Amino acid sequence: MSEIKRNRHLELQVVLGASAVLERYGNVSKLIKKDGFKINFELNTLIEGSSPLTMAKSTGIGLIDISSAFSNLKPHIVITVGDRFETMSTVLAASYMNITLAHTMGGEVTGTIDESIRHAITKFANIHFPASIDAKKRIIKLGENREDVHLVGCPRIDLVKEYLKKSKKDFKDLPPGVGDTINTEKPFLLVSQHPVTTEYEDAQNQIIQTLKAVKKSNIPAIILWPNADAGTEDISREIRKWREKGLDNKMQFYKNLPIDYYVYLMKKTACLIGNSSSGIREGAFIGTPVINIGSRQNKRQRGKNVIDVSHNEDKIFRSILKQVKRGKYNREFIYGNGNAGSQIAKILSKCKLNIQKKIAY
Amino acid sequence: MSEIKRNRHLELQVVLGASAVLERYGNVSKLIKKDGFKINFELNTLIEGSSPLTMAKSTGIGLIDISSAFSNLKPHIVITVGDRFETMSTVLAASYMNITLAHTMGGEVTGTIDESIRHAITKFANIHFPASIDAKKRIIKLGENREDVHLVGCPRIDLVKEYLKKSKKDFKDLPPGVGDTINTEKPFLLVSQHPVTTEYEDAQNQIIQTLKAVKKSNIPAIILWPNADAGTEDISREIRKWREKGLDNKMQFYKNLPIDYYVYLMKKTACLIGNSSSGIREGAFIGTPVINIGSRQNKRQRGKNVIDVSHNEDKIFRSILKQVKRGKYNREFIYGNGNAGSQIAKILSKCKLNIQKKIAY
Amino acid sequence: MSEIKRNRHLELQVVLGASAVLERYGNVSKLIKKDGFKINFELNTLIEGSSPLTMAKSTGIGLIDISSAFSNLKPHIVITVGDRFETMSTVLAASYMNITLAHTMGGEVTGTIDESIRHAITKFANIHFPASIDAKKRIIKLGENREDVHLVGCPRIDLVKEYLKKSKKDFKDLPPGVGDTINTEKPFLLVSQHPVTTEYEDAQNQIIQTLKAVKKSNIPAIILWPNADAGTEDISREIRKWREKGLDNKMQFYKNLPIDYYVYLMKKTACLIGNSSSGIREGAFIGTPVINIGSRQNKRQRGKNVIDVSHNEDKIFRSILKQVKRGKYNREFIYGNGNAGSQIAKILSKCKLNIQKKIAY
Amino acid sequence: MSEIKRNRHLELQVVLGASAVLERYGNVSKLIKKDGFKINFELNTLIEGSSPLTMAKSTGIGLIDISSAFSNLKPHIVITVGDRFETMSTVLAASYMNITLAHTMGGEVTGTIDESIRHAITKFANIHFPASIDAKKRIIKLGENREDVHLVGCPRIDLVKEYLKKSKKDFKDLPPGVGDTINTEKPFLLVSQHPVTTEYEDAQNQIIQTLKAVKKSNIPAIILWPNADAGTEDISREIRKWREKGLDNKMQFYKNLPIDYYVYLMKKTACLIGNSSSGIREGAFIGTPVINIGSRQNKRQRGKNVIDVSHNEDKIFRSILKQVKRGKYNREFIYGNGNAGSQIAKILSKCKLNIQKKIAY
Repeated sequence: MSEIKRNRHLELQVVLGASAVLERYGNVSKLIKKDGFKINFELNTLIEGSSPLTMAKSTGIGLIDISSAFSNLKPHIVITVGDRFETMSTVLAASYMNITLAHTMGGEVTGTIDESIRHAITKFANIHFPASIDAKKRIIKLGENREDVHLVGCPRIDLVKEYLKKSKKDFKDLPPGVGDTINTEKPFLLVSQHPVTTEYEDAQNQIIQTLKAVKKSNIPAIILWPNADAGTEDISREIRKWREKGLDNKMQFYKNLPIDYYVYLMKKTACLIGNSSSGIREGAFIGTPVINIGSRQNKRQRGKNVIDVSHNEDKIFRSILKQVKRGKYNREFIYGNGNAGSQIAKILSKCKLNIQKKIAY
Repeated sequence: MSEIKRNRHLELQVVLGASAVLERYGNVSKLIKKDGFKINFELNTLIEGSSPLTMAKSTGIGLIDISSAFSNLKPHIVITVGDRFETMSTVLAASYMNITLAHTMGGEVTGTIDESIRHAITKFANIHFPASIDAKKRIIKLGENREDVHLVGCPRIDLVKEYLKKSKKDFKDLPPGVGDTINTEKPFLLVSQHPVTTEYEDAQNQIIQTLKAVKKSNIPAIILWPNADAGTEDISREIRKWREKGLDNKMQFYKNLPIDYYVYLMKKTACLIGNSSSGIREGAFIGTPVINIGSRQNKRQRGKNVIDVSHNEDKIFRSILKQVKRGKYNREFIYGNGNAGSQIAKILSKCKLNIQKKIAY
Repeated sequence: MSEIKRNRHLELQVVLGASAVLERYGNVSKLIKKDGFKINFELNTLIEGSSPLTMAKSTGIGLIDISSAFSNLKPHIVITVGDRFETMSTVLAASYMNITLAHTMGGEVTGTIDESIRHAITKFANIHFPASIDAKKRIIKLGENREDVHLVGCPRIDLVKEYLKKSKKDFKDLPPGVGDTINTEKPFLLVSQHPVTTEYEDAQNQIIQTLKAVKKSNIPAIILWPNADAGTEDISREIRKWREKGLDNKMQFYKNLPIDYYVYLMKKTACLIGNSSSGIREGAFIGTPVINIGSRQNKRQRGKNVIDVSHNEDKIFRSILKQVKRGKYNREFIYGNGNAGSQIAKILSKCKLNIQKKIAY
Repeated sequence: MSEIKRNRHLELQVVLGASAVLERYGNVSKLIKKDGFKINFELNTLIEGSSPLTMAKSTGIGLIDISSAFSNLKPHIVITVGDRFETMSTVLAASYMNITLAHTMGGEVTGTIDESIRHAITKFANIHFPASIDAKKRIIKLGENREDVHLVGCPRIDLVKEYLKKSKKDFKDLPPGVGDTINTEKPFLLVSQHPVTTEYEDAQNQIIQTLKAVKKSNIPAIILWPNADAGTEDISREIRKWREKGLDNKMQFYKNLPIDYYVYLMKKTACLIGNSSSGIREGAFIGTPVINIGSRQNKRQRGKNVIDVSHNEDKIFRSILKQVKRGKYNREFIYGNGNAGSQIAKILSKCKLNIQKKIAY
């Protein structure tokens, strides 16, 4: 967004929806405004209930709302990121309305409904910005035209690069979190675990295995609330029960952290635990020791910093001991070296619009 | 549907929506009931206006409604056909709700938004039933697992095979149509032209070129109303103006014909003109002389019976003369030999459910 | 709208939806822009099918869309008119979002679902602008506070007053209509008949009775297409059939006429026939002879110019003879004397906002 | 529901939506099934965010979904209760689809958007079942026909009558709640406070005043979570903060209690505090000492058991002392004597259907 705003051949419009407008998920809206961006349209599209049914219905609402937004804003290009379920609203609205669609982070391989969504988006997108070589090759194999596929690295790495310059004193007025206060100058764990949509009935047990292992390690831990997928409420409820049982000493819980502070924590943590993609992507760039649990990040290209384990208290516990002992890893540039944004802005400012797509074979 | 109903390991549920519930498009609902099927759920999902915006919004409504339908019907498998815009409602509802998705007529190549939709559906579908060898190969190239791709031919050919046995006397109580009555025992033309979604602003001119060429040939013509895509109203309006100007002698207009009678007309016509896929698919099986106009069927695998021309009165006119002179072609079995339905039912009755998808490369 | 735009204490915002954005109903959008107004938001909200079910669903879509519009436009006051089904979208969005709601033409009595809708809107509205004394009294009886009810007359009479100054030569480039061209300098009939929502299954027969009576009178007639209520398609179809049977000589059909020209026709016609409210309201002001058919305008306060009959060919025919013989009536000012707009603008520019409503008894 | 099920001239169909299908609000769905009822249709219709905007949008979704449900279930009569915002979905769907609408608890007067909603529903309803004499008179004043208005009392009183027979030992497996366990055999307070939609920005402060007063009284308290109106999240957050600050000793928090247990608590409590209608309605029948805070129940007909105060810690505190000292009140039968259900079932089994409404004056 910064690079598009900076490019004088482009005009930035921001449409915000899904969990980004909800305080419950950290009020991203406020963060964006604080960063100096204008939000052109806000959409409340999430149906309560976080089940597979409400994922589908929320995407339907999103499609109705975002097509109204596009109809009023009349963008020439729509940029969409990754593979979340509600992203299909953006993708269908843009494609059906003959608006050129650009897609970042396509071509990767993971392990849930996101896997289908991501490749389907590739089949709708007109311009592709994969984050890694593997991803680029896969997009071309999917029948996209080589000249529409631009390897630029992951835009989040641009931010990470910048954030890594920050030190403790740069972070004031942090949200307090709930539970014990963790001293980030001493060894601590960082936990970020989301529901897996095809296993959403196991979400409760999965978070419990992780919490038990963390507890057993006796190392203080910062624990993040899950995102808005089906199963979220189950995870949230378990975390709440855990706390209500008084098992939460040496644990501090956050709904949503400022991203720069999260990167800082990734730099300082003894070990990042869970199934967030950040461990694999940003983790490689930072050198963070990571324990990746379960199927959610299956087949995502990863560096040496990652240990993969199943949802098993004991295995997680033993991996914690190993990673804590091992310490920081060397940095790897699998997902770019931090200039994805400016490359994307440059390419978009010159691209042809409204090209009818056709499979390459 | 007949073969699934017949298979004792399967139970058929029918959900009807989009143009199929509207009288304006021929009241498919009644035809289905007349054929002895029970409709489990009817959905009114089309927003009036037939523009790119309403295509997007209608798909949103469809997604809300069909996910409610699935939530109540609880199907194990959802079967969806082809590549129309509203099909994405079905696809997303099934995929997000972890219901196994089967897809017929995937893997083909055409020339509009349908092209993106079709391949995106392939990336969501769990079981594929391509209609031609080319299509099968393409689905596998798209990263689908070979064992999930079953070449069965096109189910519509099953019907064509059966319908070809009918003779004039089997068709009683046909809808009257409007305009002159055309004698189908003498040479006549058959016109079926739909809007092309990415060119929907040209729809008016495109139909005019065709009507003029038909007029010039002086051969009686049966002309079908277009389907529910963006641009439909433009085509409809032009047809109405054409008639109001009194240019419609030797022309008979129909909203929607019984499919068996349409096949009969394809067998009898001197030439099928327009951009319907039926000319290429059923046309090859029947041996119908076809003039395929414009970009809509680009790259669809075709037989010797098809002449491709642009939206140009003169070119269409000259092709009419050529095809009328040439007469019937030999039959070709590019899209199957008429037993797709029973093969599909058999495979579905044995397939594994709820397999997490993963790209093959 | 003109008076609000003119008032320097007010800022006009226009939100357009339902049939007003559809070409099928005369493209009101273009007319509004031609009159020099900016449209701030357009909404496509009508579901195809024109049944009671689609009326309900369209109102649901409308509510979703218009609440988004209000959320972005942030109006202080929302003005809504009358009692059409989709009006409930506007009313609920404004009320639930704590926006002051002004309502014109409340307090009247008619004969369909509009009757319930109109009084329900009164119970949501904060400021009332009834068009007649009867209506004002009824609103107060409904428990509204006397100081919130302002008798201003009907805003449409403002326009009628202005339009009555026009003569034949002011109308150029009129839409051609279809069918015979009617000479408006000689005696002619004007027909405007809409479906009655609670009787929508009779809509077909009702229009036929009227057309037959008109035919029998042998007086040339201008016939208007019905509005977007449930039953519209039935009426439209009958009109189309009527024309296809060649019964349409001496008849000219219009989808939507410029309002000023419609007023001109009301001034010139030998008799206005049907169930449009215009016969009763504008008719009284103009002195038009009117035949009001069926239950739709039951209990609307009316002048001497109106003859009420049932949906019966013979009764309609005999009333035509009577009215044609009688000729023009004296003008009556039941629905105001033509300055409703400026009064409304003045009151709105001074009104208190966001008052919690409470019933007066 | 029990009485309708019991009546052999009626067939019960249950459609469940809004907060009733969400676990977050106590999973009413399970409770209903446990009571032996079949649920014919479940609808997920609430948009996350609990703001005025999401109230409007949720009602739109509800209207889309419930009209589909009615279209499939084809009920002859729809019964709706009270005045919640989502109720308008039910009301519009039934009215627009020409289904006879019965309404309980109409004609009362309160102090929020519910006030407008309730009277608007009266204007749509065909049959009215007011709970008190005042309410009956008001419905008739609103222009409803006397023969359609049946004073039956409040159906909830039927349940209260039955529940009052229960004793402590009848309540097993109660939800644990969070916080301290309160002994209901000793004096305790009961708190139930909901957001007021037109004051939803004050919701935070309002709950704080109440919690402080309760704290100051030093009497143990059972505190209920608020319902799903705009402002709910603010109240919930304050309650959570209160607990996180460790101010929650002698307090036990519940999301949703079994209704019979709630009645038991009303019977036993030293004082019910907040703005729930139950204090006024059931409270009169039971004789519960009640402190009614703020504007939410303004003008609801009340008995001697109610003290009204503003949102002020000190005033609430002093009223607590007064009510606790005063003890139980005599029972009053303002809202019926416990046979509303059987009266309603009897009237519905004999009522005429599909009567066109018309205002009485």
